[in-house]
Parts: sequence; C-alpha cells; structure tokens
Amino acid sequence: MQQEIVFYTNPMSRGGIVHWMLEELGAPYRLEVLEYGAPMKSPEYLAINPMGKVPAIRHGDVVVTEAAAICAYLADAFPEAGLAPETTARGDYYRWLFFAAGPVETAISLQSCGVRPTAEQQMQLGCGAVATVIDTLAMAVKDRRYIAGDSFTAADVYVGSHIGWGMQFGTLDRRPEFEAYWAGLKERPAHRRSEAFIEKAMAEQR
Amino acid sequence: MQQEIVFYTNPMSRGGIVHWMLEELGAPYRLEVLEYGAPMKSPEYLAINPMGKVPAIRHGDVVVTEAAAICAYLADAFPEAGLAPETTARGDYYRWLFFAAGPVETAISLQSCGVRPTAEQQMQLGCGAVATVIDTLAMAVKDRRYIAGDSFTAADVYVGSHIGWGMQFGTLDRRPEFEAYWAGLKERPAHRRSEAFIEKAMAEQR
Repeated sequence: MQQEIVFYTNPMSRGGIVHWMLEELGAPYRLEVLEYGAPMKSPEYLAINPMGKVPAIRHGDVVVTEAAAICAYLADAFPEAGLAPETTARGDYYRWLFFAAGPVETAISLQSCGVRPTAEQQMQLGCGAVATVIDTLAMAVKDRRYIAGDSFTAADVYVGSHIGWGMQFGTLDRRPEFEAYWAGLKERPAHRRSEAFIEKAMAEQR
Repeated sequence: MQQEIVFYTNPMSRGGIVHWMLEELGAPYRLEVLEYGAPMKSPEYLAINPMGKVPAIRHGDVVVTEAAAICAYLADAFPEAGLAPETTARGDYYRWLFFAAGPVETAISLQSCGVRPTAEQQMQLGCGAVATVIDTLAMAVKDRRYIAGDSFTAADVYVGSHIGWGMQFGTLDRRPEFEAYWAGLKERPAHRRSEAFIEKAMAEQR
C-alpha cells in the first residue's frame, strides 16, 4: 500500500471529515484544494467526481467519493491503523455509518430546504420525521465513548463530524448526549490538525 | 455463525432490498412481518429500531437497521457467500453503496417533497442537483454488469434495487444505462423469490 493518496478538498466542505480520517490514518497524502465554482466543475475534476463535489480521494488507480465511503475505504485499505472492526463484528459500525450518511443527511437537507414532511411523506421517506432521526442519533451515542465497539473507528470520525459540526452550525441541538460523545473525540490530535486547516482558511478569508 | 437471523419487514417497504440480500446469502432466516402504524411503533419494535421503520435484522445479539447497512453487514458476516470484495479492494463497493444510500436517497426525497434546490442549496447539500445525482448513477452502471469489480456483490443488491424500483415507480427515468444494468440482475433467482413475496402481498391487498 505504498500508492500515493491524493485528497481533493476545500476547507469549507465535508472534506473536513476525510481530512480528520487521513490524519488518524497516519499515511502520507497529497492535498489538492479546489475552489468552489469552475475548478470543482472542470473536466479534469469531473473525471474524478462527476458530481463536481469535494471530498474525493485517488489512491493509486482507485477513486472514492462520498465522505462516509472514503472513511470506510481507508479504514479497510490500511488495516494497520486499526480504524475498522473485524469483518465479523460490524453491526454497529455499518448501522451508524449508513444512518448518518442516509437519514441524518436527508433529514438535515429537508430541514435546510424548509420542508416539514407530512405523515404520509414520513412513511415513505427513508428518514421519516426529522425529530425521530435526531432522537435516534442521540440514543446511538448515549453513554458511549465510541459508537461501534470499544475502540475508536472510522464510524466515530464520520458520525462525530456530523455531531460536532451539527452543533457548531446549529443544525443539531446541543443535547447532553451529543456534547458528551463529542467531548470524547474533539481533542484527538488528528482532529485538531484537520480543524487547524479549516481555521487557517477561515482566517485568511476575513 | 449459527445464530438465528430475524428479519423484520413489510412487503411495501425498503425491506425488499434486504429480502433479496437474504435470499442471495442462502442462510436461514425467520421473517417477521410488521404492519405500518401501531405494530411498527410498538415498544417491542422500537427497542429494535427507534426509528419505527422496517427493515431491520437481529442476528444473535446484533441489531442492524438501514437497508444498505444490513446488506454490508450480512456480506461480511457470511464471507462464504462471496458477496463482498476483499477488504483491500472496496473502493467502488463503498463508493456506490454510500452514493445510493446518501445522495440518491436525499435527491429522491427532496424531489418527492416537491423541493427544487436553489444554486446555493445545491452547493451546501451533499446531494447537489437532483439531475447530477441521476447522471452520476447512470455513469456508475454504464457498460457494467456489476457495480463493484467483476462479480456480483451486496452493492448490486442495494444499487440495483434503487434502479429497478426507481424505474418501476417512476422516480428514475428508464435510461438505457439503467435498463441494461437492471436486465442483468432482475432475473436472478434470489431476486425473483423476494419479488414473489411482494407480489403475493399486493395480490392479497386487492
């Protein structure tokens, strides 16, 4: 696994999730910062991600997009980092990775577009009612240091990012369950390094 | 792995995805059909899935919810079925599993709630513009028999279900890429068995 990792990102994007993951991994990577607008929609970058979105990674010949997919991919591709449970014990790991990538993303997207799903829509939508999604997320992290098993995994990077940023940007309430879980993650050196990158970019914008 | 699998579902739900997956797996399972309304919101079932939604599975002590998570979990828990790539080769596998569970679900949810995201919303939303999500999905399956590597995997069950049902229910256009990919999947005996269960339930409702 000595192939180069190229990490396509922008400091103001979900790329921060992958940045944290890469810092946890400890493998070298090359950062490619893309601005919003034309650079993210260039033919060269659309060949990497036809969505014209960051983050994405290229690892040798392998391209992976979607922050959660990148976290899961890297955890498996670099087993020595110990960021994924054994394949025989991945119930909670997949459950909460997909819960955050699916219902949480959808519920917050609907909310940010001003939609309040009707009872009939709640039945049809995979995410149901927004309040139920948030309650379920709170239950998932309640009294847990890590969300899948007894050690830190890629699922904590992904779910933790949703919770930490959700509280920071006001899309999630500051519930005690979220605060306690996030307090156990946010001071990790790898997270602080990825945060420093975002803070520097924000300071330069001012 | 001789622990019982209990499969909680309703024929008119995303449970059909998991049903197909279980039939591909070949392991015995016990079907628990839950009606919408009170049975899906009972305290007993909310202890399994606080979302009050199907599908869910219980495998021994492990509970997994979210159709994509269940597919990924079962593929790993039953390696003899050969439904997941090696952990060193999971780029496309995770990429398209999470793409269908995230942006595709979100885009279709927004569409079904009548939302047309503005340019600014498209930038913020993980799914961006609905049309770009569909174009990306079409590109992912174009000229491919299977979506991740050279053999059938759990990602085909999940992405294929989205495509097959999307065309059936009119949430996805019948593009040649979708038709060709789905034609290579829909006649699989395991899929036909799961379909028969849905058709029987629909016939009984009439």
